[in-house]
Amino acid sequence: MNGANQPIGVFDSGIGGLTVVKALMTNLPRESIVYFGDTARVPYGTKSKSTIVKFSLENVEFLLRFGVKCIVVACNTSSSWALPTLRKFFKVPIIGVIRPGATAAVRLTRNKRIGVVGTRATVNSRAYDAAIMRLDPSVKVFSQCCPLFVPLVEEGWTEGDICREVVATYLKPLQKQRIDTLILGCTHYPLLARTIRRVVGPSVSLVDSGEQTAGDVRGVLAGNELLTNGKKNPKHRFFVTDEPAHFHKVGDRFLGKLAGSVERAHPYL
Amino acid sequence: MNGANQPIGVFDSGIGGLTVVKALMTNLPRESIVYFGDTARVPYGTKSKSTIVKFSLENVEFLLRFGVKCIVVACNTSSSWALPTLRKFFKVPIIGVIRPGATAAVRLTRNKRIGVVGTRATVNSRAYDAAIMRLDPSVKVFSQCCPLFVPLVEEGWTEGDICREVVATYLKPLQKQRIDTLILGCTHYPLLARTIRRVVGPSVSLVDSGEQTAGDVRGVLAGNELLTNGKKNPKHRFFVTDEPAHFHKVGDRFLGKLAGSVERAHPYL
Repeated sequence: MNGANQPIGVFDSGIGGLTVVKALMTNLPRESIVYFGDTARVPYGTKSKSTIVKFSLENVEFLLRFGVKCIVVACNTSSSWALPTLRKFFKVPIIGVIRPGATAAVRLTRNKRIGVVGTRATVNSRAYDAAIMRLDPSVKVFSQCCPLFVPLVEEGWTEGDICREVVATYLKPLQKQRIDTLILGCTHYPLLARTIRRVVGPSVSLVDSGEQTAGDVRGVLAGNELLTNGKKNPKHRFFVTDEPAHFHKVGDRFLGKLAGSVERAHPYL
Repeated sequence: MNGANQPIGVFDSGIGGLTVVKALMTNLPRESIVYFGDTARVPYGTKSKSTIVKFSLENVEFLLRFGVKCIVVACNTSSSWALPTLRKFFKVPIIGVIRPGATAAVRLTRNKRIGVVGTRATVNSRAYDAAIMRLDPSVKVFSQCCPLFVPLVEEGWTEGDICREVVATYLKPLQKQRIDTLILGCTHYPLLARTIRRVVGPSVSLVDSGEQTAGDVRGVLAGNELLTNGKKNPKHRFFVTDEPAHFHKVGDRFLGKLAGSVERAHPYL
C-alpha cells in the first residue's frame, strides 16, 4: 500500500487549496489527486492552534482512507501550526507550503528583507520566520496579517478602489520596512496579485507558496521512489464537508474547469 | 425540569450573539443564561442550509444538557434556515431573531418599503421576506447580502474610509429602492450602525433584530409561566468550541465585561 500508483492527498480548509492542485496538475500531470476541502468549518485562519491541529488530524485521517502515498497540506494556516503534530502521528510523507515559499523567497531577495502576508493564525505562528531563519539567519522577516483579503477574494472584489485601499493599508508597514520580496502566505492571496503588484510596484518579487510546493512534492516522491509509473490517465476526486454545489461554482474560478467528481464527506462524524 | 428557575439557553455561530445576551440581561435581569458560541466552526452565513441545520441541531442538544427552559437562536443565519427543523425535533420553546426584527420593522415603516441586510445564507433563505409578508402583505422587502460586514467588524474597522465605502456599495441598491426602514439582520451589524447611519441619513429607521428579541423572550416565558421567581442573583455560563481566550477579548467589545465563566465545549464529538 501507499505505492507509486496511489493518489496524492491534498487538504485545505476550503477551496483555496485548488491553486496548489492546479500547480500539481501542471507539474505532475500523471499523478492522481484526492482533494479534501473542509468547507463546513472554513476558515481556519481566524481560529486557535488547538482547533487547527484537531481539524488537520481529522483531515489527514480522512485522506488516508484512500491509501494516498503522500499528503500535501495546501493550507498555510494548517501548515503553520499542525505540521509537527501531523508528522508525529502519521508515517506517510507530509508536505506543507511554508518551506517551499520560504525557500523561493530566500532565493529571490537581494536586500535580505522579506515580507510575509497571511491569516492571523499563520502570522502568529511565526512559521515563515522560523523557516527563513533556518535557510538564512541574516534575512529579516516582516509579517502582516490581512484578515480582509480572504473575504475580498470570496466576494470577487479583487480589483477596484476598495480592494486597492485595503491592500495599501495592510502593506504600508511592510513597504516602510523596504522589503524587496513578499510571500503570499495564504492560498487565496494570489488572486489579489494584480492589485498587490500595483500597490508595491515592479521592484518587489511576489512569491506564491502554493505554486512553489509542487516542486517539493516532486522531490519527496522522487526521493521515495513514489512517482507514478502508471500509463493510464490520472483520476481526480474532490471531497468537501459543505454542499458541493458552491464548491463547483467557486472552484471553477480557481482551477478553470474541475476535472473530477465532487462529493460530500463527513470525516468527523 | 425546564422549570421557571432554569436558565435561558442562547446559541450563536460565534461571538455576535452576545448582543442578544446583553439585551436579555437588560430586559430580564433576574434570568440566568447559558450561552453557546460555535467559534470553532464560525461563520455560518457563508455555508449551506444543510450544514447550518446540522450545526444548529447539535447546538440545541448541547444546551439541553443544562435543562434550559427555552432556547434563543441569536444567530440570524440559524434562525433563517433552522428554526422549523429545531421546533420539529425539540419540545422546549425556541425563539429566533427574525420575527422580532420583522415585527419592529413593520411597525416603523411609513412608506412600506423595508430593506434587509444579512449574510448570504440569511438573504437567500428569504426568511425576513416571509415573516414580513405574514405581518403585512402590502410591504415590499428589498434584501442585500453584505459578506464583508462581519470581517470588517472583526477587524475593528467600523469607521473610516474603507468601512464607509463598503457600506455605501452594499446599501446603494437599497437606497435606490427608497427604503425607509433597514433591518440589521446579523448580530455583528449593529457595530456598524454609526457608519450605516452616515450613509443612509437620518430618515431611515435602523432595526436591531437581536435587541428586539428580548421582548419576544419575555412574552414566551410569561405565556408559559416560566419567568423566574428566584431571589438569588442570576448565574451565567458561556461555552465556546474554540479557545476561550479570544472570546474574552472580543466578547468584552460586545458586552462590556463578561459576567460569567467561559469554558470550552465539544458538543459534536
